[in-house]
Amino acid sequence: MPGVDGGVLFPAEELRKWTEEIFQKVDVSKEDAALLTDSLIEANLRGVDTHGITRMLTVYVNRIQAGVLSPRTKLDIVREKPSTALVDCNNSIGQVASDYAMNLAIQKAKSTGTAFVATTHSNHYGAAAYWSMKALEHGMIGFSATNGPASFAPTGGRTPMLGTNPFSVAIPAGRELPFVLDLATTVVARGRITLYAKQNKELEPGWAFDEMGRPTTDPHKALKGLLAPIGGYKGYGIALAIDMISGVMTGSKYGTHFPGFLADNLKDPTDVGSVFAAISIDSFMDLPEFQDAMDTAIREVKSCARAEGVERIYVPGEIEMGIRADRLANGIPLPEAVLTDFVALGTELGVAFPGE
Amino acid sequence: MPGVDGGVLFPAEELRKWTEEIFQKVDVSKEDAALLTDSLIEANLRGVDTHGITRMLTVYVNRIQAGVLSPRTKLDIVREKPSTALVDCNNSIGQVASDYAMNLAIQKAKSTGTAFVATTHSNHYGAAAYWSMKALEHGMIGFSATNGPASFAPTGGRTPMLGTNPFSVAIPAGRELPFVLDLATTVVARGRITLYAKQNKELEPGWAFDEMGRPTTDPHKALKGLLAPIGGYKGYGIALAIDMISGVMTGSKYGTHFPGFLADNLKDPTDVGSVFAAISIDSFMDLPEFQDAMDTAIREVKSCARAEGVERIYVPGEIEMGIRADRLANGIPLPEAVLTDFVALGTELGVAFPGE
Repeated sequence: MPGVDGGVLFPAEELRKWTEEIFQKVDVSKEDAALLTDSLIEANLRGVDTHGITRMLTVYVNRIQAGVLSPRTKLDIVREKPSTALVDCNNSIGQVASDYAMNLAIQKAKSTGTAFVATTHSNHYGAAAYWSMKALEHGMIGFSATNGPASFAPTGGRTPMLGTNPFSVAIPAGRELPFVLDLATTVVARGRITLYAKQNKELEPGWAFDEMGRPTTDPHKALKGLLAPIGGYKGYGIALAIDMISGVMTGSKYGTHFPGFLADNLKDPTDVGSVFAAISIDSFMDLPEFQDAMDTAIREVKSCARAEGVERIYVPGEIEMGIRADRLANGIPLPEAVLTDFVALGTELGVAFPGE
Repeated sequence: MPGVDGGVLFPAEELRKWTEEIFQKVDVSKEDAALLTDSLIEANLRGVDTHGITRMLTVYVNRIQAGVLSPRTKLDIVREKPSTALVDCNNSIGQVASDYAMNLAIQKAKSTGTAFVATTHSNHYGAAAYWSMKALEHGMIGFSATNGPASFAPTGGRTPMLGTNPFSVAIPAGRELPFVLDLATTVVARGRITLYAKQNKELEPGWAFDEMGRPTTDPHKALKGLLAPIGGYKGYGIALAIDMISGVMTGSKYGTHFPGFLADNLKDPTDVGSVFAAISIDSFMDLPEFQDAMDTAIREVKSCARAEGVERIYVPGEIEMGIRADRLANGIPLPEAVLTDFVALGTELGVAFPGE
């Protein structure tokens, strides 16, 4: 199964229960702990371990303990129209703020057809798809995007000025799985370059630049250099648009202004901006008719003649749904290093890790 | 100046006047001819000659003459909510339909904060940026996307099932030029491959596939094969999302269902779907404050340390604005072959081409 990492398997529900208790120990309310934990466990279930408890739990706990992430939710709607809202998150947990904002977008779209809600002074919100997918059960198309700290350069430049600024689009189907696109605007993640460097393996052309901004396939030069955006100036443009809308328009940080992020900085609030949108399908087509049409369209794509050596055509989101079914049945894999951290965290906070 | 083609220079206003008269000769109303012509002349001014009169005038006239594109506008709002509308274009001119839809989105966004309007049974609408940019003078962010006939395959496939499905985002600034992103979801356009094939020049890796779906840098194999989407499965996902929203959700053609397009098919209506959205800045931040913040953000990006051999960092839309200033002053270049066609068209319809 693509995307599955090695590690010791734990049932999702055991990890969920333990994670909820950990968050409550650092002053997160029971309700917010459940919500935050669900976003992380769902990311792990979908194979997106970079946004699951595997990477984020310790980071979030450390930030709360350092006093730079508020465990207590305070959300203020500072501007509001029938189809828009700007929510000041006052450094509350990103997932709690995002849940509020996405639900607000869905409620507004129910009456006006579509809505666009932005958060400011917020925090890391997990996987973008978790928010866009909230729209699906309401018969809506969901969208979300967020900015983040600079990791690549404008086209022609050689200093990082743009985050990978991910966005997600979720579209409901009928009997077929929903369409769920979730992507960062760089060709590959930095973790991929690190892995190639460890193996002294040449990168594919187009993945990265060296520190002088020249294209390189040397993973060591790339690690000192910059990631490449998808489609060159096209990905640069998409990332910049997301930064201007999520960051500049909401009055949050943007571009080079993040003073560090997550584990890199335990002194300053993250201060990201994120956006959430919903479009009600029945504003354009009756939902059952749309679901049938989507099923047909998805089956057509999946029936495409395959290139040499390819076994199957995937629709965005399908691989993650397959991993989810597997991990629900067999457990979420935790790498040994993560497991060691979790056991220590459990001991520190007096919530023994499952089996300890 | 990047993007400027060779050819004989003509003042934009002479070409505009002649083009408007040509369209009126094939039964387009004076008002609609002015609107359609403006979208084409603006594309030429911005250096986007693929969407200017240079490529589109003869195609549109031929389609009207063949009876597969209606010169007479008939637009019906078939569904409407405070922030959404679906407009049935009944095979009217794409630009006339799009102008109506984008203006409707802007009007709705004035009262509700944001709006999303879709057109169905429409036609080729020119350059996407022409529509997103309509929002700028209203202090809004504009967005537009459209689907089109299949030109590349889903990731892992080898038959064309997705259009290049372009989208555009326009964001107003203050003293700086506005941010205007307009991109197709393939790495390069087919025209670029054709040019390399003529010169027997090797393609850059990542541009195209051969007919078996294998990556190739041979331009001749690529011409028989497929274009590559930006970022591999990422661009595939973006193009598919646009097709599902613009095509499937509006009840227009999508995927492999286009029976041909533009000059390739003079028997069937094009039947594309397009989408138009507007977000009113003052729903999130006072416009003057936003304009100042955008100016600062744009200047920061432009001041990025430059890679070896790079003279200037561009913000999306800036190159086109530079070409526009040059072409307004010096004229729009028409290649000899286009000029010959125009003189013949002028003779056929009794509107002599300027200078003839």
